[in-house]
Amino acid sequence: MTLIDGRTGLEKLGDRACWELLGAGEVGRVAVVVDGAPQIFPVNYLALERAIYFRTDEGTKLRGLVDDRRVAFEIDGVDPMRRTGWSVLVNGRAEVVTDSLLLRRLREQPLHPWAVGPKSTWVRVSPLAVSGRRIPPRRGPSDH
Amino acid sequence: MTLIDGRTGLEKLGDRACWELLGAGEVGRVAVVVDGAPQIFPVNYLALERAIYFRTDEGTKLRGLVDDRRVAFEIDGVDPMRRTGWSVLVNGRAEVVTDSLLLRRLREQPLHPWAVGPKSTWVRVSPLAVSGRRIPPRRGPSDH
Repeated sequence: MTLIDGRTGLEKLGDRACWELLGAGEVGRVAVVVDGAPQIFPVNYLALERAIYFRTDEGTKLRGLVDDRRVAFEIDGVDPMRRTGWSVLVNGRAEVVTDSLLLRRLREQPLHPWAVGPKSTWVRVSPLAVSGRRIPPRRGPSDH
Repeated sequence: MTLIDGRTGLEKLGDRACWELLGAGEVGRVAVVVDGAPQIFPVNYLALERAIYFRTDEGTKLRGLVDDRRVAFEIDGVDPMRRTGWSVLVNGRAEVVTDSLLLRRLREQPLHPWAVGPKSTWVRVSPLAVSGRRIPPRRGPSDH
């Protein structure tokens, strides 16, 4: 079933579609609140069993900001030629991963941060809410 | 001059490079703080005279959230084949545009929101800080 928001024309993506898109992506953005103001950080990530994981370095700005904090995580994709696109938003809580079995499993995953720092810390985003939207391809003039 | 962060290996982009990237983009993400938690919204935008403008509809969630609030705005680009990418972050304050001359000028700009809602409200993000980072292309094994 396709749910279309009558006012915006946006198609609401179901939970399964959201996680398929999250599972296929490589780069997303994490937003955190710092002194009452939002900040956005692009990250390489992976989705594993309905959670989002990314790595960050000890001592970085992001490392100190996310632990035990509310975060938002977003991915999107666009098709400029068709003037359409989609986005998935995960609202959740972030925490540094300390479980050794999980850390071993994460290190076996194909996550390849593009920056060259050691990226020693894994952060998990446990979702409180996941939502997605897709813009249906624009109708041509003949459709109006 | 190229500034490289010795720990992360990221190249810091200068102000001019940031605005060139902002001027060339079409889609960005706005982060706002709602009840202490961050939220991210993808938007079509345009950069005009060192400010960011996007449109939103009356009555939408975003419309009620941004006026006179601290926001973060982010764009990024990736080159998966070369495993490199860049990002530009604008931290600033958002306000609904009410100046009629500015509104007329904005309506003449080539901003084409992909969703079909009326998008009647223009929002301006006045930058407090602009920063950008680029990941230098990864060196090959022979470079190590």
